[in-house]
Amino acid sequence: MISPYHGGSRVKIPNCKIENLNILPKIQIDEQTLITLSLLKIGILSPLDSFQGYEEAMEISREGRMENGLVWSMPVLLPVTDEESYTFSEGDETTLHFSDKLVALMKIEEKFSLDMYEYCNRIFGTTSIDHPGVKAILQKGNKFVSGHIKGINNYNTHFSTMQPDPDKLRGLFNKKGFKTVTAFQTRNPPHRGHEFLHKYSLLSTDALFINPVLGPKKSGDFSDQEIFQSYQVYLDKYLPKQRTILLPLIYAMQYAGPREAIMHMIMRKNLGCTHFVIGRDHAGVGSFYGPYAARDYVSTFTDIGIEPVFLKEAYYCKACTEISNDDICPHDDSQKSHFSGTKIRDAFLHKREPYPYEMRGEIYNKIIELRSSKQNTVETLDKLEINLSNPLE
Amino acid sequence: MISPYHGGSRVKIPNCKIENLNILPKIQIDEQTLITLSLLKIGILSPLDSFQGYEEAMEISREGRMENGLVWSMPVLLPVTDEESYTFSEGDETTLHFSDKLVALMKIEEKFSLDMYEYCNRIFGTTSIDHPGVKAILQKGNKFVSGHIKGINNYNTHFSTMQPDPDKLRGLFNKKGFKTVTAFQTRNPPHRGHEFLHKYSLLSTDALFINPVLGPKKSGDFSDQEIFQSYQVYLDKYLPKQRTILLPLIYAMQYAGPREAIMHMIMRKNLGCTHFVIGRDHAGVGSFYGPYAARDYVSTFTDIGIEPVFLKEAYYCKACTEISNDDICPHDDSQKSHFSGTKIRDAFLHKREPYPYEMRGEIYNKIIELRSSKQNTVETLDKLEINLSNPLE
Repeated sequence: MISPYHGGSRVKIPNCKIENLNILPKIQIDEQTLITLSLLKIGILSPLDSFQGYEEAMEISREGRMENGLVWSMPVLLPVTDEESYTFSEGDETTLHFSDKLVALMKIEEKFSLDMYEYCNRIFGTTSIDHPGVKAILQKGNKFVSGHIKGINNYNTHFSTMQPDPDKLRGLFNKKGFKTVTAFQTRNPPHRGHEFLHKYSLLSTDALFINPVLGPKKSGDFSDQEIFQSYQVYLDKYLPKQRTILLPLIYAMQYAGPREAIMHMIMRKNLGCTHFVIGRDHAGVGSFYGPYAARDYVSTFTDIGIEPVFLKEAYYCKACTEISNDDICPHDDSQKSHFSGTKIRDAFLHKREPYPYEMRGEIYNKIIELRSSKQNTVETLDKLEINLSNPLE
Repeated sequence: MISPYHGGSRVKIPNCKIENLNILPKIQIDEQTLITLSLLKIGILSPLDSFQGYEEAMEISREGRMENGLVWSMPVLLPVTDEESYTFSEGDETTLHFSDKLVALMKIEEKFSLDMYEYCNRIFGTTSIDHPGVKAILQKGNKFVSGHIKGINNYNTHFSTMQPDPDKLRGLFNKKGFKTVTAFQTRNPPHRGHEFLHKYSLLSTDALFINPVLGPKKSGDFSDQEIFQSYQVYLDKYLPKQRTILLPLIYAMQYAGPREAIMHMIMRKNLGCTHFVIGRDHAGVGSFYGPYAARDYVSTFTDIGIEPVFLKEAYYCKACTEISNDDICPHDDSQKSHFSGTKIRDAFLHKREPYPYEMRGEIYNKIIELRSSKQNTVETLDKLEINLSNPLE
């Protein structure tokens, strides 16, 4: 059976009425918080319907669980500036704004500060500002507010139409008779190592839900267009369409590795999936986490409610003459051609088409085509256009 | 955890003392019964410690279960001739002989006859003597005896040393920390379609137990030497040795398709395995059963105590450029090169080396080498020599 919602039931947050809200104190939010609001609104972060407070954040940092015991590995925080925090008191209503647009109405429950050194150590395992997630959160200061969100307006129409609706997705799974669905998260165009994971998922469960993460990028990342459209080409040519569903998730990566892997699982559990592929160095960045750190951390939890799928890193093995991994290949390293982000990015930089055992030619060609056309020039999310043939409609 | 014995505990049947047994009435047994005795003795047919009687045989024929409800799909019968049956009464002790050797001591419990037309229809789904299993059993008449087996002497030393010892195998699984083991039964040298199943098994469970069935053949079958030695070459070159165990099972196929698939599962459950691969047309012959008949029948039982692994038929797909099956490949039939026993046998007949995507070259070469040497000329089981590097010793 497809997974129940995390914590039991779906959260739905209504729109808020705009009238008479301009007199309330304002909090300016950034793109990451804007995206978090779109996830909260549609229930992908169920059972959460608010930004979390001090005690909850501390418990999560220490235990990877909410105070009620539910698995939850990263606090969902609303940062405020010192100036903002002077304008309201606990119990006040306040409005959240992105740029000049009113996005949400919230009742302040608590103003608090965190020891960000301890926080980063616990959540990211590092305080180095070379870590993009650490750098981003440290720039926001150490002041936060918690509170019940009374309404959210989807400022960005793309956010509202592009986040997958959990109820609709569950309806689709039920209609198709899927009892088990493996979710696959990605931030890259598919190479043959990814395909190996997809095919294992399609052999071992009823369906594959490919859920590329679109949203803010770090330098060197593939664009949302490149990721999503290359997946459309790939799905069209190489995967069984009746059992593969492709939908994006708008989400701001924090690159917290093991801790973030659990959040990725919870979001896909809320989307009805029963299995989730934990990749090599899942949600990691640079060399901050070991290749199997997420696997080890996830394994310490038995009650997430969605099954982690651990597969070792895939590679092409010349002796096997096929894509393989250390679970099935007995050959030594000299036979193995590993997939690497750097190698793939270089292939595009120098327009050297990858070998067929590295990446399907159609995928390479689609990305080259996008790079030589205007379609790939969007830089911010609110200008993103993706030609979605949405299976939920 | 590795599987408990079917019915709860292992049966062990002692040797019987030879003295003073020559005065007892004699039953002449054939090779199939000799093999059954070796399986009974070592506990692979646990909880069975006797040949089954009329009511048990009828219940099994009707329900696929023993009278106590335990899943058991094919009666284990001891056929006797009319002449033999006149020489003893119920309650008598009798000796079982293969050729001129005393093999077992049994106390007769029941003499009975079966409606062989009904029996064949229920067990084989046919009464056609074109079916080798039907033909074999009809040649034995319709008279049987049941009885408690008081002792078995292993006439054929190969039987005693080659049947895998369930306790030793379980000990090996435990020592290696395997919690899940997929058993793979085969009567053929491995082609790439088999390899696809092996690799899926190694990805989805802790270990793979390759358990080729050696024993009586039908015409056109590969010899025991060819099957076993080609697997040794294959294991050495292409599979992870620490997680793959290769041991033969001496067993006389009855080609009963769906019914026999269940017996294959029970034997591997007794050997400690947790999963068992149900192949295409498993244990079938000719076109008596559909390709997925075993799958359908096995699926009607939920309490066998060993998990069936159903994978659709593998093939090489030119568009995927790899081994695939209908669970993962979206292409049309024109792209697919299917594996077939006939094609493989023809390759050897005409000494045309199969394509690398059909069979590994080392396997082809090993069989060609065996066919051009004297090693492959043994025709009966008691002359079979297999160079076993037995992982259980």
